[in-house]
Amino acid sequence: MLPNKKQQTFALISRRYTPSVIQSLATIADFLQGAGHIVIYEQETAQGAAIPGVASMPLDELANIATAAIVVGGDGTMLGIGRRLAPYNVPLIGINHGRLGFMADIPLDRMIPVLSDMLEGKYVTERRILLDGAILREEQTIHRAMAFNDIVISRGAGSGMIELSVEVDGHFMYSQRSDGLIISTPTGSTAYALSAGGPLLHPSLSGIGLAAIAPHALSNRPIVVPDSSEILVEIVEARFPTINFDSQSFASVHNGDCLLVRRSKCEVTFIHPKGWSYYDTLRDKLGWNESGQGNSLGSDG
Amino acid sequence: MLPNKKQQTFALISRRYTPSVIQSLATIADFLQGAGHIVIYEQETAQGAAIPGVASMPLDELANIATAAIVVGGDGTMLGIGRRLAPYNVPLIGINHGRLGFMADIPLDRMIPVLSDMLEGKYVTERRILLDGAILREEQTIHRAMAFNDIVISRGAGSGMIELSVEVDGHFMYSQRSDGLIISTPTGSTAYALSAGGPLLHPSLSGIGLAAIAPHALSNRPIVVPDSSEILVEIVEARFPTINFDSQSFASVHNGDCLLVRRSKCEVTFIHPKGWSYYDTLRDKLGWNESGQGNSLGSDG
Amino acid sequence: MLPNKKQQTFALISRRYTPSVIQSLATIADFLQGAGHIVIYEQETAQGAAIPGVASMPLDELANIATAAIVVGGDGTMLGIGRRLAPYNVPLIGINHGRLGFMADIPLDRMIPVLSDMLEGKYVTERRILLDGAILREEQTIHRAMAFNDIVISRGAGSGMIELSVEVDGHFMYSQRSDGLIISTPTGSTAYALSAGGPLLHPSLSGIGLAAIAPHALSNRPIVVPDSSEILVEIVEARFPTINFDSQSFASVHNGDCLLVRRSKCEVTFIHPKGWSYYDTLRDKLGWNESGQGNSLGSDG
Amino acid sequence: MLPNKKQQTFALISRRYTPSVIQSLATIADFLQGAGHIVIYEQETAQGAAIPGVASMPLDELANIATAAIVVGGDGTMLGIGRRLAPYNVPLIGINHGRLGFMADIPLDRMIPVLSDMLEGKYVTERRILLDGAILREEQTIHRAMAFNDIVISRGAGSGMIELSVEVDGHFMYSQRSDGLIISTPTGSTAYALSAGGPLLHPSLSGIGLAAIAPHALSNRPIVVPDSSEILVEIVEARFPTINFDSQSFASVHNGDCLLVRRSKCEVTFIHPKGWSYYDTLRDKLGWNESGQGNSLGSDG
Repeated sequence: MLPNKKQQTFALISRRYTPSVIQSLATIADFLQGAGHIVIYEQETAQGAAIPGVASMPLDELANIATAAIVVGGDGTMLGIGRRLAPYNVPLIGINHGRLGFMADIPLDRMIPVLSDMLEGKYVTERRILLDGAILREEQTIHRAMAFNDIVISRGAGSGMIELSVEVDGHFMYSQRSDGLIISTPTGSTAYALSAGGPLLHPSLSGIGLAAIAPHALSNRPIVVPDSSEILVEIVEARFPTINFDSQSFASVHNGDCLLVRRSKCEVTFIHPKGWSYYDTLRDKLGWNESGQGNSLGSDG
Repeated sequence: MLPNKKQQTFALISRRYTPSVIQSLATIADFLQGAGHIVIYEQETAQGAAIPGVASMPLDELANIATAAIVVGGDGTMLGIGRRLAPYNVPLIGINHGRLGFMADIPLDRMIPVLSDMLEGKYVTERRILLDGAILREEQTIHRAMAFNDIVISRGAGSGMIELSVEVDGHFMYSQRSDGLIISTPTGSTAYALSAGGPLLHPSLSGIGLAAIAPHALSNRPIVVPDSSEILVEIVEARFPTINFDSQSFASVHNGDCLLVRRSKCEVTFIHPKGWSYYDTLRDKLGWNESGQGNSLGSDG
Repeated sequence: MLPNKKQQTFALISRRYTPSVIQSLATIADFLQGAGHIVIYEQETAQGAAIPGVASMPLDELANIATAAIVVGGDGTMLGIGRRLAPYNVPLIGINHGRLGFMADIPLDRMIPVLSDMLEGKYVTERRILLDGAILREEQTIHRAMAFNDIVISRGAGSGMIELSVEVDGHFMYSQRSDGLIISTPTGSTAYALSAGGPLLHPSLSGIGLAAIAPHALSNRPIVVPDSSEILVEIVEARFPTINFDSQSFASVHNGDCLLVRRSKCEVTFIHPKGWSYYDTLRDKLGWNESGQGNSLGSDG
Repeated sequence: MLPNKKQQTFALISRRYTPSVIQSLATIADFLQGAGHIVIYEQETAQGAAIPGVASMPLDELANIATAAIVVGGDGTMLGIGRRLAPYNVPLIGINHGRLGFMADIPLDRMIPVLSDMLEGKYVTERRILLDGAILREEQTIHRAMAFNDIVISRGAGSGMIELSVEVDGHFMYSQRSDGLIISTPTGSTAYALSAGGPLLHPSLSGIGLAAIAPHALSNRPIVVPDSSEILVEIVEARFPTINFDSQSFASVHNGDCLLVRRSKCEVTFIHPKGWSYYDTLRDKLGWNESGQGNSLGSDG
């Protein structure tokens, strides 16, 4: 986004089409057009939102010409759109209809002043890494996908553990028996990996986290490796193992299949309001309160 | 507390003497006297609250004649008074001036209707165990105290770990190196033990929890033993070890000293409002919300 | 088992039929017959082990007449046989062909002297509780089973969390979103529940543990309730939820189904060698070493 | 270390002076001198090891001329020497008399062949970051030190929590109440931080870990920030707070004092044997075994 540039093209995207979302999209379009910019609706949005007489374009085409994409929705929508836009290097602006998210962090009632500031160059950018995962069977790649949050190998249906063997940069790390393994970006460190006991990773940390789900060995601990690492996981033994990418794309796999994970060559850039701080979001989302610590306790108060 | 009994004696106790606490004490006294009962202020309360012309008595004497003790304060006050009243088997009623606690669970603005119900037998009683801890040096008991929450052996000042050896019922359990060991009642399971990773124990579980603080061994886990257990902890090696009882009574100890912990012969009984549920309190204090789960998170919303 | 009683009947059971197991069974039978006792092979064992000319009987019949059951196998076999013998109150003796287990704790090379001691009354008995779980659909029980280790509700295949609502003794405890919930006996506290972060529970603790698997809420903690509790779990929302009992019996369930868990009226009794200590087993199985603490670490040594 | 360079100068250092250590030092000196290199004993080592007729020099002087320092000892010695050599950029080689460490990773019985290989350029180098910590009182720096493992703020003697307020890069992160806060390098991630629940950080990850010790808030989680971060911790409230650097240098502090932590401009380089892998060390030290997983468990085997 170039501050004060005369005419820029903005993509407008949503995945929910309630009256208030449609109203927000229209308000944003009006505002940007009024400021002399071009607004194009992403095709699916245009269909869902039933916007008459407005230019629209498939996401992939739009990605080639947009200066930035404005997404009205929650973190889930940001995640999906972000992953699709990653190859085009289009930055994302997230406007939130519900509770503020990690990525969708501009509240509805402040969207116009914030966008106005952004047009004047008052914003903070932040780059996020993605993972590139390939499933290998007998040395052939049978599936390949990107992940913004995480790639998860899990035991699938039924009971019984999955047994995995993990190598990093050609060095054997460990074999583990567990319900599964979560390989996550810093972005994903606040999602499933956190539930499994993984640490929080600041978005600009150049690291990839590995966290086992309910590991059998008591000495298992989450580990963070540099994002230059090549992580190779072999499915040694499991009954119905599956691999998923951001919980949005799935693959059934076999014993003997391998998952190769590397940092993707693509990145996603977020545009945040001026003064934005990751820690503010973290504190809000995790219920850390400066005072109070409402969810703490003790019989000693 | 005998429902509908003609005349009962109530102890009134507080440890904070703000105008609103004094007002509450007076309101309670009026209400109970009006209902035909005897109200006696605990001596320290009477002094602090500057109540003219009201009978008062030292806690130990009062404990012999009171049907129940009404405590105006928080969980900390309940804890201290509860431990002192334990040998006398006087039940406690907790009226809370601040945020509701685990033990002090009657809100100020409902105290009169709740007390009124209680006088009619509409209440729930709950018994809580205490620990009896003895510090042994060369087979002599050099200190002995009760604990309502926990008895904690810790490394004291400076750095370096404490090394402990733990026996239960004459059987060696483990030696551990850590920052310390927390031996807790179910009541204490929501206090320090919880911070150290210990489980929640329902107050009526007949168990004692052992949780190490920052244990060196990765395989260390919290353990819960029956409350009939005799737990003997030897301080094998530490620089400035200390033992505390409910963080209220302290002892400096030496290498070679032992701590013997058993369930106390005394118990404390709480009288809760009718319909009281431990789980309601837990949910409130721990920030578990039926809906919402405000402090949960994910990039996937 | 009655010490020094003239003639007692022993059931001999195994589930693996390697030559060395068959040899062990024969050695045990010889020894007991030589001591004047009756030995009857469980039918499936007799078939698998191809023992000519030895009495055999289906497990259920044998259970009615046996003084004790001698199981040659690991903890998994003890678990399965124990659950089936529970209604008959037949104590179990576990002889282990592999690494010693929590339940199968008599090493092969000491089995004869240990059995000899046991016949003279030199042993320790230990009682273990079981869970009784019923799956309810529209107030009808559609499945009912016992569990020695645990009853597990899990999200099944695919991704996405399971949402559960838990009530104990008619009181709402919490709703949780997670990969699943493990309800375990003290016996099961060293199995799956431990992997999910649950505490160790001494076998004679009268408690039932609840541990969520990868819970979404940061404030979720394992909880231990008295074994008199009636635990009712509703499956609020999940895609392919399943319930399993000791990972040996499975049920596919629907949203809206409930699981009711109580302590079973049956118990299992183990007969351990004289001098047996649960803590010795625990230390061995968890890799706690009196000295050494081999699996601990630090850059500070 | 320059492979095959004609004459290089090696520092020889130890902190234990048992006969076998002295013998090892002599063997190493002989070998290197025999290969045409110069060997100089660090002064304290020369005194402790009572080596007659060998050149010695204070560590600081020696650091200016040595190509590499060979340390005979454990990780603790490597840690102390590494921190002192950091400003001079002298790489370290660790020869271990006991159990292999994270840093001291050449076993005694292979030291000569390994050193021989190293002289021929067959080795792996690895760079480790250090922390630079300054204690500020009323904007004056009252103490400043480097740490290789960690800088720890803790509550000191007595009971009661410490309350801290943490800012990163000028942004408020959180206030926390706990037993203390561990700020660690990746090197330190396997030390105290691990005991407190922190993740493992690969040594080449450009990150700094923050792990609270027994935090009061249930929502507290370890966090890893980029090593470009400026971490400012204010001691809001504590009774006898202390700050230590690698558990080797201590400072008593006051409420209101601040600790400022940044990545040090200095680094330490380790020279490892050819084929060295961090994961091999990790697996060994943490008791992760490729097969077996000796310290895992379950009642289901």
